[in-house]
Amino acid sequence: MHAPIEYADSAADVLARIRARRPRVHCITNSVAQQYTANMLLAAGAVPSMTIAPEEIGAFVAGADALLVNLGTLDRERKAAVEAALAAAGGKPWLLDPVFIERSPERAAFARRLVDARPAVVRLNRAEFAALDPAGRPPDEVARAQATVVALTGDVDLVVDGRRRVAVANGHPLMALVTAMGCAGSALICAALAVETDALLATVAALAALGVAGEVAAERADGPGSFAAAIIDALYRLDRAMLRTRARVS
Amino acid sequence: MHAPIEYADSAADVLARIRARRPRVHCITNSVAQQYTANMLLAAGAVPSMTIAPEEIGAFVAGADALLVNLGTLDRERKAAVEAALAAAGGKPWLLDPVFIERSPERAAFARRLVDARPAVVRLNRAEFAALDPAGRPPDEVARAQATVVALTGDVDLVVDGRRRVAVANGHPLMALVTAMGCAGSALICAALAVETDALLATVAALAALGVAGEVAAERADGPGSFAAAIIDALYRLDRAMLRTRARVS
Amino acid sequence: MHAPIEYADSAADVLARIRARRPRVHCITNSVAQQYTANMLLAAGAVPSMTIAPEEIGAFVAGADALLVNLGTLDRERKAAVEAALAAAGGKPWLLDPVFIERSPERAAFARRLVDARPAVVRLNRAEFAALDPAGRPPDEVARAQATVVALTGDVDLVVDGRRRVAVANGHPLMALVTAMGCAGSALICAALAVETDALLATVAALAALGVAGEVAAERADGPGSFAAAIIDALYRLDRAMLRTRARVS
Repeated sequence: MHAPIEYADSAADVLARIRARRPRVHCITNSVAQQYTANMLLAAGAVPSMTIAPEEIGAFVAGADALLVNLGTLDRERKAAVEAALAAAGGKPWLLDPVFIERSPERAAFARRLVDARPAVVRLNRAEFAALDPAGRPPDEVARAQATVVALTGDVDLVVDGRRRVAVANGHPLMALVTAMGCAGSALICAALAVETDALLATVAALAALGVAGEVAAERADGPGSFAAAIIDALYRLDRAMLRTRARVS
Repeated sequence: MHAPIEYADSAADVLARIRARRPRVHCITNSVAQQYTANMLLAAGAVPSMTIAPEEIGAFVAGADALLVNLGTLDRERKAAVEAALAAAGGKPWLLDPVFIERSPERAAFARRLVDARPAVVRLNRAEFAALDPAGRPPDEVARAQATVVALTGDVDLVVDGRRRVAVANGHPLMALVTAMGCAGSALICAALAVETDALLATVAALAALGVAGEVAAERADGPGSFAAAIIDALYRLDRAMLRTRARVS
Repeated sequence: MHAPIEYADSAADVLARIRARRPRVHCITNSVAQQYTANMLLAAGAVPSMTIAPEEIGAFVAGADALLVNLGTLDRERKAAVEAALAAAGGKPWLLDPVFIERSPERAAFARRLVDARPAVVRLNRAEFAALDPAGRPPDEVARAQATVVALTGDVDLVVDGRRRVAVANGHPLMALVTAMGCAGSALICAALAVETDALLATVAALAALGVAGEVAAERADGPGSFAAAIIDALYRLDRAMLRTRARVS
């Protein structure tokens, strides 16, 4: 695999490409997360869109470079939107973020069907992973069986594709105190997927960038309120030197 | 009743229990308020969830420790969600926040039916209270008749349960210039209800904590934009000493 | 027409009237923009409401002083809400913000029908304008034919009513990196329409105020996260002297 410095450079490359190409990311995401997700994408250089109306989601997805499917606040309309969006997505990369499936059996069942529809990446935490795969297989095995990247986020993020296994040890505890931080991180992975065909590298780049931005932001913040804005600022200003100094990817 | 210092200590105790137990608060709230409400709960130490989908709200409420019922942007789906949530709530404490009922007779009628369903607390401002009880009874009488706590918020908040009567004189005018501040305050009361069975004390604790946080935040803010973040920071950092110095509860 | 200083004074007058009269602005806007729009209106001195429920939107619009019709995230419910709101609006001023119609033919067709319903102002960017009028007429001609004000926003905003033509050259690039900034700007125009019957002057006042606030905010911000809060602060603090110094209207 890569040396840490190579991952840092790869993350910087991905970020530079997002800023240069301004990829469009269509987001089916929960209503709690929409604003923060859009601001995170804009700060990174991407262009968000958010509609879930069945009459028009096809046109939006057709014009987008990547698709986010987040299952938070999963009402009937959002479910229909997911199905219409996947039908329109063609070969475009998409990410599944099965928020809170451990709290809703209905949502977990829907998430399992979506994993069979070949997302490029599934991003989730440990409780969500346990609900997604009640058989208890390790992430590598699920990734291999489903031909996807599994990004298991936590204190240390683990990114696997069944062949490779990368750990991202960046981030800060305040990130868990801002709602939609994980959802926005998933959207950032989508922006990376739009400019980097290696889905594992794209995922690692986005998680490292967000984690480093979180560390920088924590140094300036007085609490989770100012931190929520500071991490957006830090992502906007993030450069290769900072990634090389701070990224802890191995 | 209590001396002011006892209320301050009681508020500090409630806050400490929220931080230690991390209660789950399920919020049926308007789409304008969802993000800010979630961030307020996270800053206080609680765990928010927000879905209103009829297929899954039962499971979320069953796993929650308290329930918020906020009537802002009250569409058909939210109404159905309220009914499903109350059916699943069992004996869990819930709070009714009848936002803007003075502007919508439809919404006022729905709020009156909900008051009969025994919320632990009804939090509202004077215009909303007048619309809720067109007979013009005093808050104490409504609280007694409905066996609930009425929290009438304004320059000075009045909290009554038909037997006791407490005034909370904390807060800052900038709080009225941040949308969803009242809604988020109601969610904070829910977090308090999850860890304090005396609903009047829980309500006073949450209102005093938020008011003191608002005063601290106003000293650092340049206007309502920075204030919205600063009050989240201040709530996150709020401690017993600050509550003892600042709380004006009597 | 006016000299630049007269536009600055007119903007200051409009702002003073908003702060004194606290007009109610009912907003049909996309779920991404609701929170930021409400906070922008509150910072300016106006009172926002946001419901789209068909049962109650009539009562809210009847009690409002101006109406915002923003087409972002245009689902079926929002479409029905627009029609119910316009039926209840009577002679009240309303603004059409046809967000992203270049991405959705369905949405563009709906927007064209709405322009025939006599909005006081249509605010949009160049791509949206091209989608709204595929015949390619200049903005002045569209404004004259539809008896409306067209506000074409961009690096320099152009405001025309078919007779007059005003350019507003304020603003900052960071404004494009905060989601809903344009939507919130449209809401600010609505607040101005509620206190200034000359729709062109109202539009110019709101765009100049927001642009100047953006310039002030950019001097304090570290990136788009802190900027989003700083522009709210700057709008809240904006005064005649600042408008006279900074407004570039001609």
